[in-house]
Amino acid sequence: MKKNGHSKQNGFSMEQKFYVDPNIFQADLEKIAYVDWLFVDHDSRIPNPGDYFVFNIGKESIIVTRGKDSIIRAFFNVCRHRGSHICTESEGNKQVLVCPYHAWSYDLEGNLKSARSMPETFDKKEWSLIKCHVQVYAGMIFINLSKQDPRDFNSFIAPLKPYMDLHGLGDARIAFRKKFLTNANWKLCVENFYECYHCTPSHPEYCKVHDKTFISAHGGGLNTGPDEDIKKYEKTIKEWKNKTENLGYLNDSYTDETGGMRSASRTPLPNGFLSETVNGKMTAPLMGQFKQGQGNDCGYTNVSFNAFTSLLMSNDHAVVFNFIPNDTLNTTMELLWLIDKDAKEDIDYKVKDLTWLWDITTVADKKIIENNQKGVLSRAYMPGPYSNQEKGVVQLVDWYLNQIST
Amino acid sequence: MKKNGHSKQNGFSMEQKFYVDPNIFQADLEKIAYVDWLFVDHDSRIPNPGDYFVFNIGKESIIVTRGKDSIIRAFFNVCRHRGSHICTESEGNKQVLVCPYHAWSYDLEGNLKSARSMPETFDKKEWSLIKCHVQVYAGMIFINLSKQDPRDFNSFIAPLKPYMDLHGLGDARIAFRKKFLTNANWKLCVENFYECYHCTPSHPEYCKVHDKTFISAHGGGLNTGPDEDIKKYEKTIKEWKNKTENLGYLNDSYTDETGGMRSASRTPLPNGFLSETVNGKMTAPLMGQFKQGQGNDCGYTNVSFNAFTSLLMSNDHAVVFNFIPNDTLNTTMELLWLIDKDAKEDIDYKVKDLTWLWDITTVADKKIIENNQKGVLSRAYMPGPYSNQEKGVVQLVDWYLNQIST
Amino acid sequence: MKKNGHSKQNGFSMEQKFYVDPNIFQADLEKIAYVDWLFVDHDSRIPNPGDYFVFNIGKESIIVTRGKDSIIRAFFNVCRHRGSHICTESEGNKQVLVCPYHAWSYDLEGNLKSARSMPETFDKKEWSLIKCHVQVYAGMIFINLSKQDPRDFNSFIAPLKPYMDLHGLGDARIAFRKKFLTNANWKLCVENFYECYHCTPSHPEYCKVHDKTFISAHGGGLNTGPDEDIKKYEKTIKEWKNKTENLGYLNDSYTDETGGMRSASRTPLPNGFLSETVNGKMTAPLMGQFKQGQGNDCGYTNVSFNAFTSLLMSNDHAVVFNFIPNDTLNTTMELLWLIDKDAKEDIDYKVKDLTWLWDITTVADKKIIENNQKGVLSRAYMPGPYSNQEKGVVQLVDWYLNQIST
Repeated sequence: MKKNGHSKQNGFSMEQKFYVDPNIFQADLEKIAYVDWLFVDHDSRIPNPGDYFVFNIGKESIIVTRGKDSIIRAFFNVCRHRGSHICTESEGNKQVLVCPYHAWSYDLEGNLKSARSMPETFDKKEWSLIKCHVQVYAGMIFINLSKQDPRDFNSFIAPLKPYMDLHGLGDARIAFRKKFLTNANWKLCVENFYECYHCTPSHPEYCKVHDKTFISAHGGGLNTGPDEDIKKYEKTIKEWKNKTENLGYLNDSYTDETGGMRSASRTPLPNGFLSETVNGKMTAPLMGQFKQGQGNDCGYTNVSFNAFTSLLMSNDHAVVFNFIPNDTLNTTMELLWLIDKDAKEDIDYKVKDLTWLWDITTVADKKIIENNQKGVLSRAYMPGPYSNQEKGVVQLVDWYLNQIST
Repeated sequence: MKKNGHSKQNGFSMEQKFYVDPNIFQADLEKIAYVDWLFVDHDSRIPNPGDYFVFNIGKESIIVTRGKDSIIRAFFNVCRHRGSHICTESEGNKQVLVCPYHAWSYDLEGNLKSARSMPETFDKKEWSLIKCHVQVYAGMIFINLSKQDPRDFNSFIAPLKPYMDLHGLGDARIAFRKKFLTNANWKLCVENFYECYHCTPSHPEYCKVHDKTFISAHGGGLNTGPDEDIKKYEKTIKEWKNKTENLGYLNDSYTDETGGMRSASRTPLPNGFLSETVNGKMTAPLMGQFKQGQGNDCGYTNVSFNAFTSLLMSNDHAVVFNFIPNDTLNTTMELLWLIDKDAKEDIDYKVKDLTWLWDITTVADKKIIENNQKGVLSRAYMPGPYSNQEKGVVQLVDWYLNQIST
Repeated sequence: MKKNGHSKQNGFSMEQKFYVDPNIFQADLEKIAYVDWLFVDHDSRIPNPGDYFVFNIGKESIIVTRGKDSIIRAFFNVCRHRGSHICTESEGNKQVLVCPYHAWSYDLEGNLKSARSMPETFDKKEWSLIKCHVQVYAGMIFINLSKQDPRDFNSFIAPLKPYMDLHGLGDARIAFRKKFLTNANWKLCVENFYECYHCTPSHPEYCKVHDKTFISAHGGGLNTGPDEDIKKYEKTIKEWKNKTENLGYLNDSYTDETGGMRSASRTPLPNGFLSETVNGKMTAPLMGQFKQGQGNDCGYTNVSFNAFTSLLMSNDHAVVFNFIPNDTLNTTMELLWLIDKDAKEDIDYKVKDLTWLWDITTVADKKIIENNQKGVLSRAYMPGPYSNQEKGVVQLVDWYLNQIST
């Protein structure tokens, strides 16, 4: 494969430079992160007018607010006067966004409302906050930092809507959140997510919860494992599909045919499991259509919006995985656990049980990703061959090299 | 305005690069900091022969000594042998400057006095410490790091002498000093000092002490505010000028007509105030001509030597503000509180009362300056319009762009 | 002297760039550290099959193992799969080297033994760990990171063998080790080792142990001091040489005539001293030929393998000095104290007594080297003249400039 100057041997990992070069990191931001639709949070973080939070990526800081009209908007956290950060806390509630430096004040729609002592020629209308494009679907807030018109959101989100609807993300709320600051290039973090070849040696908890053949065949995403294991697991999936179809639930899969990283799939949990938990029991009340319908279908839903954000969902909870590039060798991996909005802590769910699997698993991932980065910095590093269980990573790096080469 | 490649829109803040680019920071040092006369300390810090202190700027370390002849000299803290720092403590008393590495020994005039085992051709006279140009006026020590002949000191200091004399800085001593290490480009720190547009939202203490119209009209330096407030405050100044003239004190102002950043002004404190303190009462004994003369004239004196150093003075104390560039995104803001040399701690003054206003105010400034830097790092930052209260910053950036463009 | 673009005035220290420029540091690694034979440890650190340790230099991490066949081997700590570090602890015992990421497993000879789910075309034989060249003589393990055939080890080690044999390093073991992480370029650390001009001002302990004339004439290596002191000390050496020759011991010296940094010398300890200790008494049992032969000959042996590693040896113990470049301004100085393998702690030797001199001396050296670096960063630094006691440094920098210029 040869893509405008970035070549890669088929079936081999990428060259060192993609993981260590600050100029390539800058290109990653410009060509990918700043043009993609980026998931920033669930709207239950800002339920009330005036609620806001700050989202950071690279050197950018973005304010996401809910207006008096309940509409969610996003702005660069940069005062139009002399550039100060306006919001200096990570979240809160404000009726007016007042810059702490000179008190320029913006309303929740980003309009400059007051600026003392300005020259007569000064027109407040010209000095609104720099807006980011924002779209919300089913409670999931996406922003786009593009300076031009952003990619069409509807075609971006459309194929994934049924899966979000099925799980009732629009009626969810955040039960817990945790950041894992990781000393590695963001692509090593994402690669780790797109394969489960490492699960056997590194994640005893995940291997206890999931079926061995499932892990091999579909652990890094649908059909990302060896053909024989995909085949071996076919019957299990087929039987479950019949069952869930009878219950009236969606059982489709989706793959982006345009080479993007969007995907969605539904597969069964291990026999007897109702949720992705230590004992297979449910850890929270049913969500979405499962609540209204025929009950738990013992399914497991995997949705990727793009390289930065994915969802792993049982019938009773969803986990958001967000990979946020900070610097060439530093990435924030943030996890959000979503449950039904009416679930009550310690009555309907316990945070410890809800978060058990992916907390302990991400603690381990942070460690192995950082070890990966250390070795990749060596002059002895060279592209190595992928296994049959790493087809998800192959897709990822093909997609990446395509993006970065255009 | 177009200055040899550095353009700026009139009335707007500077482009991002001036606050974030390491090459421009290096140019700032070479073209400004290393050719300007730099205030380093008050000579009361080294009252006795052999006393010394070390002054740091950028990667430079300068030893300032008082010789046996009581003359103050300054040297690069770099041994002529193999380059070691010679003084490794921030201050002390030494009769001989002995390099801790190989014991090359220099007298307090920088002459190499002993170097063991050197070749016969070696001539000690050729290996004196590299001198910095030093000038002292009224206790204020200035150095110049220029490799060539420095700018004329006398013409530099002459216009400011009457103000220094009035306040008796030559008979002062340091009562307290404090460093504020600030994660921001030095120009953001200095800009903060040259405007009081931020005082209303950020400095309740300052606003309690000073008159509202004064703050607007003159808070960032004489006549740096809106014309209407300057006008509104004219009568107050005029009445006070008459009063202080009758007392026999200087009541002039000085502005550098050559585009430099030197200035001096005298304005009244608020009605009933004798000093810039929490209650307007004096916080220390009268200084300088006030002590010898007709007593307190309720004036407030603002002197700037250049962009790096300014003085704010009441009749009973002076505060030195020194802004020292360390690195592109790091600056030391150091404050010195000066009082009459005969004042006795806890009898004539309390450090807590003396330092109250500018300590609490600089703590706040450090914070807002660091927020400013964070936003200026964003790709969304772009030059914004100055208010009518930021004429001091306009002068500053005009001066700066002029310096950096030559 | 003019060497392909790198000029230096004879008898003067090197220009600033060699101590501060990241590009020159990178060249130091490529042209010197990665082609030289590097001492990494004494083989008594890994006595048993499966024992291993990790050696770090620059951004490289090297695993040194002892195989089931007791042979010592070295590998880049980089998994051939996706580049992860394989060993994440500094030492241990392993029968198989299992990558913590995807469990690719290598035997102690570096052969890939297992890799799950690889494509059919995958041939394990092609994916052994990247080997480093390894050679061991008298327990001293050397590696070579060269990608090509390394320099001939035998001709490298041959001239030094008799000195290593005399002191029985092959029958030694490590009694103590200590790392001194030093914020300075590696060349400032090595320069410090190659001269004793700084011993009088900086090392009272060393000066208490050694004769003043010896320090001046030979403290930085044989004949690195002023001619008059070399002459003055001739008789002492001659008398001791006669004595040790009568005892049947080696009393030669060796200097690399090809301009390399290898050397070896034997000189007497001060009158009445049996070992380089606080009171001149032995601190451990005799080693090597002294044990088998006519007892202590009161000699002191100085061996340099290259710029990175030297040995200082009494009849009863040896100290290894290893200077390991980490980054432009950061170096690890690691000391190993070697004693006879049969010596028992607290019965035959006390660590505190054994390590007293070079621990306290290296603590002081770290400090003065870091002060040296600080001054060398100044724009006032310029090459200074060497004393007659710094002939060892002159040889060092001549050698260095030669290496870096080819």
